[in-house]
Amino acid sequence: MSAVDDTQQKRSATIAVIGSGTVGRSWAACFVRGGHHVRIYDVDADHAVTTIAWVRDALRTSGLSDTEVDSCAARVHVVPTLEAAVNDAIWVQENVPEDTLIKSQIFQALDKAANRQAILASSTSAIPASQFVSSIAGRNRCLVAHPINPPHLIPLVEVLATHWTDERVLARALKFLRDLGQEPVLIRREIQGFVSNRLQAALINEAMSLIGKGIISPADLDLCVSRGLGLRWAFLGPLETMDLNAADGFEGYARRFKNSYFELGKDLNVDRRWTKSATDQIAQWRRSILPAREIGKRQIWRDHLIVKLRRLIDSSTR
Amino acid sequence: MSAVDDTQQKRSATIAVIGSGTVGRSWAACFVRGGHHVRIYDVDADHAVTTIAWVRDALRTSGLSDTEVDSCAARVHVVPTLEAAVNDAIWVQENVPEDTLIKSQIFQALDKAANRQAILASSTSAIPASQFVSSIAGRNRCLVAHPINPPHLIPLVEVLATHWTDERVLARALKFLRDLGQEPVLIRREIQGFVSNRLQAALINEAMSLIGKGIISPADLDLCVSRGLGLRWAFLGPLETMDLNAADGFEGYARRFKNSYFELGKDLNVDRRWTKSATDQIAQWRRSILPAREIGKRQIWRDHLIVKLRRLIDSSTR
Repeated sequence: MSAVDDTQQKRSATIAVIGSGTVGRSWAACFVRGGHHVRIYDVDADHAVTTIAWVRDALRTSGLSDTEVDSCAARVHVVPTLEAAVNDAIWVQENVPEDTLIKSQIFQALDKAANRQAILASSTSAIPASQFVSSIAGRNRCLVAHPINPPHLIPLVEVLATHWTDERVLARALKFLRDLGQEPVLIRREIQGFVSNRLQAALINEAMSLIGKGIISPADLDLCVSRGLGLRWAFLGPLETMDLNAADGFEGYARRFKNSYFELGKDLNVDRRWTKSATDQIAQWRRSILPAREIGKRQIWRDHLIVKLRRLIDSSTR
Repeated sequence: MSAVDDTQQKRSATIAVIGSGTVGRSWAACFVRGGHHVRIYDVDADHAVTTIAWVRDALRTSGLSDTEVDSCAARVHVVPTLEAAVNDAIWVQENVPEDTLIKSQIFQALDKAANRQAILASSTSAIPASQFVSSIAGRNRCLVAHPINPPHLIPLVEVLATHWTDERVLARALKFLRDLGQEPVLIRREIQGFVSNRLQAALINEAMSLIGKGIISPADLDLCVSRGLGLRWAFLGPLETMDLNAADGFEGYARRFKNSYFELGKDLNVDRRWTKSATDQIAQWRRSILPAREIGKRQIWRDHLIVKLRRLIDSSTR
């Protein structure tokens, strides 16, 4: 595969989005906001009706003016076939259901239809791409670009090579995502759950265990994060948090506390099933403070607050 | 023990702070900002010199004007004996080293010297208070009020009763902390690491394992939180996060994903020692982007950003 000229992919390139569920739509908003033309294809033609309106809403939420939303939306097209979507695209983002067989068939089709220089990226959150691209001729241009949903609000993208991914493809992918304003991180080996979902599962499974055992109420458990740990994790990773928690930095912190972390670690219960007691308590608490019909409204509030947080953090960081 | 009149503890009461390290000083800033008079005692008389200046800085960082800082600082007094500190205090906050014997001796002395109605609270982060108050006459007025450091910036306080704590004392403690502007949560049983440190250890130990195995670089690991998970956890707990991640709320989320969390949980490594490879990589990365001499400056930046984040979140929540 020949290296694509940098300038070619930077602005006004064409991007294909395959699958127009929440993930695909949010990616479409990202790509178009980044200056690109986007063609979306979904097997379910009904999606076409709502897709553009959804993307417009997403762009408005992310802070664009009405004029900007109009000009972005004019560059998004819902197309009737996969071939029409990928034609001339320099990047193809696949967002079909998490099923090895379905993904495998889609990647066969993408590889046949796409421009030889195009990168084929999967949004898979769980299946290592090596499992569904092994038999594809162009497997060296396939990789995972797993967003933390929704990507038009949350910048993190986990990038993983397959066993066959060309190193130049990987480098181009990281650059492409960075130019888009996303924050790609490189996962160096295929591993169950990648990284973010593993970190999240460690914390959530322990939380579930504590609630199931009656140590803390669901409401108070959430406060431990939202009024405690999370106020630092919004802009500092856990490693920088430790580094700044000791006058002598991480080295001193590690020396003093690594044994406590080991002892505490042995007592954690992250490998158990969520109990009915835990999930019942949580569901009851959530519905008592937020009726199911108001979830959508609260999601909108969340999305706007994430945008404001990012603006504050970005302006304080530079 | 007779119940203290509510109005008595609300404003302009006297609070004793025992131990003037970082935790004690930060508590002093909290109490005085809440309208109280504060008397601080430390065995190390040298602390007296720097304590008031530290408290003034903390108050300024937390957003108070110079006039407010002056009037607050006028209500903080470093005193030469434990008895002078606790005399007339309605709340005593102990912040001595994490050592059962030292805490035990201090609580003996506090119980003898303190007003009969005073609540004796320990900042212990690790030792359940039942281990150091068992032989004290007034053990029914002792409890843990464990702050997430520093309490003048981070509102979360973990409150734990001992085996003997009076229920009315517990209720008064929660109210006192709430009136102060902190966010108390109730840990219902004494458990190693309480709740926040368990959640934190689950995430951090898994992070250490991933870095040690070479799955991800320290810099990218931190981005997984600071540009991903943490953007929601700054204002949503992990449970509300799940509730809002599904159109049908937590119930639907749990139904669809509980099995994935169980499978992923079995693969996590939160019970291992931090490897030298992991800690070396992290120390090297941190010192390459932040020389040790600049840690203090970065801490100040962190503290100011936490204050701004809280202001944004509070104004968007109400």
